[in-house]
Amino acid sequence: MIVVDRPNALRLFFALRGSILPRIFWSLATCTVLATAVAFSHGMLFQWKVTLTPVPFSLIGLALAIFLGFRNTAAYDRYWEARRLWGDVVHRSRSLAREVQTLFQTPAAPDPADDARAVLVRRTIGFAHALRHQLRDSDAGPDIERLLGADEARAFRAASLGTEHLLRGVGRGLGEALRAGQVDARIAAEIDTHVSGLAAAAAGCERIASTPIPFAYTLLLHRTAYVYCFLLPFGLVDLIGYLTPFVVLVVAYTFFGLDAVGDEIKDPFGLKPNHLPLEAICRTIEINLLEALGETDLPPPLAPLAGVLR
Amino acid sequence: MIVVDRPNALRLFFALRGSILPRIFWSLATCTVLATAVAFSHGMLFQWKVTLTPVPFSLIGLALAIFLGFRNTAAYDRYWEARRLWGDVVHRSRSLAREVQTLFQTPAAPDPADDARAVLVRRTIGFAHALRHQLRDSDAGPDIERLLGADEARAFRAASLGTEHLLRGVGRGLGEALRAGQVDARIAAEIDTHVSGLAAAAAGCERIASTPIPFAYTLLLHRTAYVYCFLLPFGLVDLIGYLTPFVVLVVAYTFFGLDAVGDEIKDPFGLKPNHLPLEAICRTIEINLLEALGETDLPPPLAPLAGVLR
Amino acid sequence: MIVVDRPNALRLFFALRGSILPRIFWSLATCTVLATAVAFSHGMLFQWKVTLTPVPFSLIGLALAIFLGFRNTAAYDRYWEARRLWGDVVHRSRSLAREVQTLFQTPAAPDPADDARAVLVRRTIGFAHALRHQLRDSDAGPDIERLLGADEARAFRAASLGTEHLLRGVGRGLGEALRAGQVDARIAAEIDTHVSGLAAAAAGCERIASTPIPFAYTLLLHRTAYVYCFLLPFGLVDLIGYLTPFVVLVVAYTFFGLDAVGDEIKDPFGLKPNHLPLEAICRTIEINLLEALGETDLPPPLAPLAGVLR
Amino acid sequence: MIVVDRPNALRLFFALRGSILPRIFWSLATCTVLATAVAFSHGMLFQWKVTLTPVPFSLIGLALAIFLGFRNTAAYDRYWEARRLWGDVVHRSRSLAREVQTLFQTPAAPDPADDARAVLVRRTIGFAHALRHQLRDSDAGPDIERLLGADEARAFRAASLGTEHLLRGVGRGLGEALRAGQVDARIAAEIDTHVSGLAAAAAGCERIASTPIPFAYTLLLHRTAYVYCFLLPFGLVDLIGYLTPFVVLVVAYTFFGLDAVGDEIKDPFGLKPNHLPLEAICRTIEINLLEALGETDLPPPLAPLAGVLR
Amino acid sequence: MIVVDRPNALRLFFALRGSILPRIFWSLATCTVLATAVAFSHGMLFQWKVTLTPVPFSLIGLALAIFLGFRNTAAYDRYWEARRLWGDVVHRSRSLAREVQTLFQTPAAPDPADDARAVLVRRTIGFAHALRHQLRDSDAGPDIERLLGADEARAFRAASLGTEHLLRGVGRGLGEALRAGQVDARIAAEIDTHVSGLAAAAAGCERIASTPIPFAYTLLLHRTAYVYCFLLPFGLVDLIGYLTPFVVLVVAYTFFGLDAVGDEIKDPFGLKPNHLPLEAICRTIEINLLEALGETDLPPPLAPLAGVLR
Repeated sequence: MIVVDRPNALRLFFALRGSILPRIFWSLATCTVLATAVAFSHGMLFQWKVTLTPVPFSLIGLALAIFLGFRNTAAYDRYWEARRLWGDVVHRSRSLAREVQTLFQTPAAPDPADDARAVLVRRTIGFAHALRHQLRDSDAGPDIERLLGADEARAFRAASLGTEHLLRGVGRGLGEALRAGQVDARIAAEIDTHVSGLAAAAAGCERIASTPIPFAYTLLLHRTAYVYCFLLPFGLVDLIGYLTPFVVLVVAYTFFGLDAVGDEIKDPFGLKPNHLPLEAICRTIEINLLEALGETDLPPPLAPLAGVLR
Repeated sequence: MIVVDRPNALRLFFALRGSILPRIFWSLATCTVLATAVAFSHGMLFQWKVTLTPVPFSLIGLALAIFLGFRNTAAYDRYWEARRLWGDVVHRSRSLAREVQTLFQTPAAPDPADDARAVLVRRTIGFAHALRHQLRDSDAGPDIERLLGADEARAFRAASLGTEHLLRGVGRGLGEALRAGQVDARIAAEIDTHVSGLAAAAAGCERIASTPIPFAYTLLLHRTAYVYCFLLPFGLVDLIGYLTPFVVLVVAYTFFGLDAVGDEIKDPFGLKPNHLPLEAICRTIEINLLEALGETDLPPPLAPLAGVLR
Repeated sequence: MIVVDRPNALRLFFALRGSILPRIFWSLATCTVLATAVAFSHGMLFQWKVTLTPVPFSLIGLALAIFLGFRNTAAYDRYWEARRLWGDVVHRSRSLAREVQTLFQTPAAPDPADDARAVLVRRTIGFAHALRHQLRDSDAGPDIERLLGADEARAFRAASLGTEHLLRGVGRGLGEALRAGQVDARIAAEIDTHVSGLAAAAAGCERIASTPIPFAYTLLLHRTAYVYCFLLPFGLVDLIGYLTPFVVLVVAYTFFGLDAVGDEIKDPFGLKPNHLPLEAICRTIEINLLEALGETDLPPPLAPLAGVLR
Repeated sequence: MIVVDRPNALRLFFALRGSILPRIFWSLATCTVLATAVAFSHGMLFQWKVTLTPVPFSLIGLALAIFLGFRNTAAYDRYWEARRLWGDVVHRSRSLAREVQTLFQTPAAPDPADDARAVLVRRTIGFAHALRHQLRDSDAGPDIERLLGADEARAFRAASLGTEHLLRGVGRGLGEALRAGQVDARIAAEIDTHVSGLAAAAAGCERIASTPIPFAYTLLLHRTAYVYCFLLPFGLVDLIGYLTPFVVLVVAYTFFGLDAVGDEIKDPFGLKPNHLPLEAICRTIEINLLEALGETDLPPPLAPLAGVLR
Repeated sequence: MIVVDRPNALRLFFALRGSILPRIFWSLATCTVLATAVAFSHGMLFQWKVTLTPVPFSLIGLALAIFLGFRNTAAYDRYWEARRLWGDVVHRSRSLAREVQTLFQTPAAPDPADDARAVLVRRTIGFAHALRHQLRDSDAGPDIERLLGADEARAFRAASLGTEHLLRGVGRGLGEALRAGQVDARIAAEIDTHVSGLAAAAAGCERIASTPIPFAYTLLLHRTAYVYCFLLPFGLVDLIGYLTPFVVLVVAYTFFGLDAVGDEIKDPFGLKPNHLPLEAICRTIEINLLEALGETDLPPPLAPLAGVLR
C-alpha cells in the first residue's frame, strides 16, 4: 500500500511513485511510435490509404469504457473485500483475546508465562502470520517458532493447512479449559464463535486468492483495448494530423492504465505497491494481543519503506 | 476454472485457452461474411441502396452497451455469490469439525475408527460431495459409499434430497451425543448453527441453480445485439468501404463475446472452463476434515487438467 | 418462471415464449405506423416541415438509457431479493424441522402421528403456503386445512395475519415443550431463532410487495421514453428515408421492452411468466419437511406447465 | 407512498397524481420561456450572436447524466435502506411479542389486562410510534398515553430520547421477569436480542435522517444541470429553429425531474407523496401485536387518502 | 457535516457555504485563463495552429466520465460505510448500557455513584470519544479524565491502542461481575457480543482510515482530467470562438469539482465541512448513556457552528 499524502494538483501531475506507468510503458511506447508513423505516412499502409474515420471508435469506445468500468469495479470489490476480511481478522483476534483474558472463572494470571490462556492468544497471533504467509506463498515457520516455540512450529509445518491447524489448537485449548471447569460452556461457545469467525475470514481470503475474475473477461477486454488503441491513429490522422500521436498517447494511457490498475489490485495479497499491507496488519495484531496479555516488551508498528507499506 | 498466470500483453493477445471465441465462432463468421458481401456490393441489396448511416447505431449502441453491462453485472454477481456460498461450505465444515473434536465433554479419541464423532465429520464431508453432485446432476452414490459405507449410501439414495438427508444425519448424531450427556446443550446449539449454515449455503446454491436471470432479458439483449451487428455493415460501408468487415468483426466480437461470457458464468456450477471448480473445493474440504480427525492418509489436492480445474 | 434451455442463436432470435413482445405490442405498432406515415410524408406535419435532426435524440437518449438502466437494476434487485427471502424460507424451515426432530430430550417417535413435534413441523409447512397465498392474494384456507385439519384452519382464517398466526402457533408448541422439560432452554432458543428468521423473511416479502419503486420514477421514465420514440421518426427521416420505421421499431423495442421487463419483475410475487415460482418452492418445502418427519407418502415436485413454473 | 395500479400506457402518460411536475414547474417554465425567446431572436443576445453548437452539450451532457445517475442511486439506496429498517422494526416487534407470549415459564394469561407481559408488548408498540414521531418531528405523547397510560407518557416526555427510553422500559420488564424466575436466562437473552435489534433499527433511521448526502454533490449537480438547460437553446436554435423550446422542455423535464425525485426520496421519512408510509406501518405493528396479546378489539389497517398512504 | 435546508433553485445556485469551489479555485482559474488566451489567439501556439477538433474529447470524455463515476461511487461508499460504523457504535453502546442496567441479578442501584456497573457504562462512553480522537489524531486524554478520573486516564495514555484498552476494561468489569455471581453467564455472553461489536466498528473505522483507495487511481484520473480540461480550448475554439472560456469553465467545474468532492469524502473522519460530525455523535452517545444511568445533569446536544457540525 502506498502511503502518501495527496500533493497539490501540480505535483500530483508529475508524481512517479505509485504510478502505474512502469507497468504499461512498453505498450504505451509501441502505440505512440505506431501513431507517429501513421501521422508521418498520412495513414498510408503500403500504398493503401486506410480511412477508418472516428465513427467506429465512438461505437466501440463506448462499449469498451462500460466494460472496462465493469471489470474495474469487480477488481476493486475484490480488493476491498480482502481488506474487510483482514479487518475481521483484526477485531476477531482482539475480541478473542479480550474474552479469554476476562471471562474465565479465574482472573487472568499477572504473569503471562504462568498462564495456559496465554498460549491460546499466542496461537491466535500465529494464525494471522500464517494466513499472511499462506496468501503470499512464503514460509510461516520462523514466525510460528518465534511465537510458539520449536515444538508447535514442527507440528505446524507438518499440517496440510497451517491456519486451520492453529485454529484447531485454539479450539483444543478452549476444550481443555471447558472440561477443567475453568470456563462456562456458554462463554466457551461465545469465544468459539470468534474462532469460527477467523476460520471464515481465512476461507474468504482463500476464495479471493484462488478464484480469479473469469479469464475470458481479461482476454476480451485486453484484446478490444489493444485493437482499439492500435487502430486509433488511422481514425484520427485525417482529422488532427501531427497531433495524432499525442491524443493516442492520452487515450491509451487511460485505457491501458485502468486495465493495469485493475489487474494489479484484483489479486490484492501480493507484494506490489498497490497491494494490501498484510505485514503491517499482522504486526498491529501482534502488538494488540501481546498487550492484552499484559506484556510490556512490544515490537514497534511497521514503518513504510520508501513510501510503501507491505 | 481456468488456472493460468497472466502472460505478457502480446501473448495474451493470441491466447486461445479460456477464450470465448469457440462459442461465438459461427455468429462472428456469419456476421463478417455478410459485412464482406455488403462491402463488395457497396450496400446494395437487390438493386436497392440501403443507406443507414452510423447515426442509428450510435443511438442504439449506447442503450445496448448499458443493458449488456447490466446483464453482465447480474451474471457475475451470480458467479461470485455462488463462490461465496461454497466458501461458506468450506469454513462451516471446518468449524463444525473443529468444534466436534474439541468441545465435547470427553477429549477426542486418538483413533478415529473408535469414535462416534468421526461419523459426524464424515457425513459433513459427504454433504459437500452430495451438494456438488446435486448441482451438476451427477451421481453422488460412489462418493457417499466411499466415505460412509454401503448402508448409509443406500439410505442416501432413497432420500428425496440427499444433502438435507446428510444434514439430518449430522443433527441426529448431535442429538444422541446431547442426550448421552457427551456435550453441553449450549455447545450442541453452537455446533448446530454450523449445520444450519450448511443448510443455508445449500439452499443458496439451489436458488442460483434453479432461478435463472429472467428469460425476457436474454431474449431482448440477444435480439438487439444481433440486429445491431447484422445491420452495422449497411451503416458503415459508405464511410469506410472495404474496412467494413474488419470493424464489424471487432464490434461483434465485443458484443457477442460479452453476451457469451455472461451466459456461461451466470450458471456457475457446470463443467465448462469458466465454471467454478467444485470438485477441487470438495477435495480441499475432504483433506481438511480428515486431517482434523487425525487421519494421516490424505488424498492429494486436485490438480488442474489442461489448465482447467473443475 | 420460464423454464427453458437456451436454444441456439438462431432459434433464440425467433423464440416467442417468454418474450415481452405481447405486452408492448400495441405501443410498438403505434410507434411504427407513425414512423411509416412520417417516412411517406417526408416529415411534413400538416404542410409544416418538422426538422428535428438526430442531435436532440443523442442528447436525450443518453440520459434515458442511463436512467432506464437505473430503474432496471432497482427492479432486478427487488426480484432477486424476493428470491433470496424465499431461499431463507426454504432453509429456515428445513433447519427448524431438523432441530425439532433431533435435538429434543427424547428421540423423535417413529410414527409422526403420535408425536406432538410433527404439529410444529406441519405448521411450518403451512406457514410457507400461507405466505404464498398472502403475497398472491389468494385463499390459503384449503392448504391449511389439508395440512393441519379443520380446527386450525378455522383459527387461521380468523386471524388478521395468517402467517404470523402460524408462527405464534409454532412458538406456542415450542413453549409447551420447554415447560414440559422436553427441550433444553438453550436448544429452544436456537430453534426459535429459525422462527424469528421465518418472521423476518415474511416481513421482507411484505415490504417488497407493499412498497413499490417510487411512482414518480415510473412516470418520468415512461413519459420520456414515449416522447423519445414517437418523435424519433422526425429526427431520422431526412437521413435514412424509408428505413425510418425499421430503425424506430428496433429502438422502441429496446426501450419499451426494457421498461416492460422491469415493470414485470419489480413485483415478483405474481403469476406472470417471469414471476417467481412460489408454488413450486412451497411444494419443495412440503416434500422436504414431510420427509424429515419420516413420512413416505410424499407429493411429487411441481412440473412446469407449458414451460412456465408458477 | 403513492398507492396506484399502473394504468395503461396512454393514461400513464397524462397522469398527474404522483408526478414530480408541480415541484419543478417554475424551473421548467422559466427554461421554456427562455428557449422560446432564443428561438424567436434566432440566438441573438443584445445584437451578439451566441453560437454554442450542440458539441459542448454532448461533452457536458454525458458527465451530467452519469453523475445524476450516481446521485439518484445514492438517494434510492437511502430510501430502500430506510424501508428495510422499518421492515426490521416490523419483524423484530412481532418476534419479541411472540417469544414473550410463548417462551416464559408460565403460559400467557388468557386476559392481557392481568399479565405483566402485556406491558412489555405495549411498550414495543409504543416504540414504533415514538420512532415515527421522532423521525417526523411530531409529538408522540398522545400515542404513548393511549397505549401505556398517563404515567408512562409523562416519563416518556421527560426522556431526552423517547425511543431509547421505551426500549429501556422493555429491558427493565424483562430483567424483573428474569430475577423473578419467570423466564430462563437463555430465553431472556434471546428476547433481548430483539430489543437490541430494535435499537439498531432506530439508530439506522437516525443515521439516515441526520446524515444527508454531502451537500457539495447537491450544489455541483444542481448548478451543472441548470447551466446546461438554460444554455441549451443557444446550442440547438441554429439546428432545429422553432422546435427548440419543445426539445429544451423535454431535456429539462428529464434532468430537473430526476434531480427533484432524488431530492424527495433521499429524506424518506417525511409526509410528501413519495415518502414512506410510516403511519400505516405503525398501524400494522399495532394490529399484529395487540392480536398476539389475544385482544380482539383491533383498529382497522390505515387506508390511503386520495391515493397516498402516509 | 453541513447542516442546511435545501434552499430554492435560485438561491441554491449562488450558495457558497458547502461548495467545493474554494478547493478547486486555482485549477479552475488557470484553466479559464488558458482558454481565454487560446480564444484570443484563435488556437495558435507560437505560430503553429493546433487543430484538435472536438472528436478526441468525446472519445476521452466518455471514458473519463465513467471512471470518475467509479471513483466517486467508491469514495461515497467509504463515507457511508464510515457513517454506518458510527451508527453501530451508537446502538451497540445503547444496548450495552441497557443490558447492563436491566439484566443483572440485582436491580440497578438508584444512585449511579454507588454502582460498579456505572463504571462499565462510563468506559463505553469513553470508548466512543477515544475512537473519535484516534481517527482525528487528537488527544483523548481530557475526555477520558473527565469521564473516568485521573487514574484510568493515566492507564489509558500508557496503552498502545486506547480504544482496545477501554474495551478490555469493560470486559474486565463484566468478568468480575460474572465471577461474583451478579450476572448469569448467558447474559454476560450476550453483553459481551456488544463489546465485540464495538471492537468490530473500531476495526472498521481503522480500516477505512488506514487503507486509501489505491493511489494509482487518483493519479490516473487526476492526470486524465487535467490533460482533458487544459487541451479542451484547442478543440472548441474553431467551433464556438469567444465562448470557449465559458464552456471550458463549466466542463472543468464539473470534472474538477467531482474529483475534489470525492477526494474530500473518501477520508470521512476529518474536520472539513463535508466530513462526518463525530463530535456530535459522541455527544449523543454521552447523553443517552448518562441518562440510562439515571443521571439528570446531561450536557446539551452539540449545535452546528456556522452551519457546520463537526
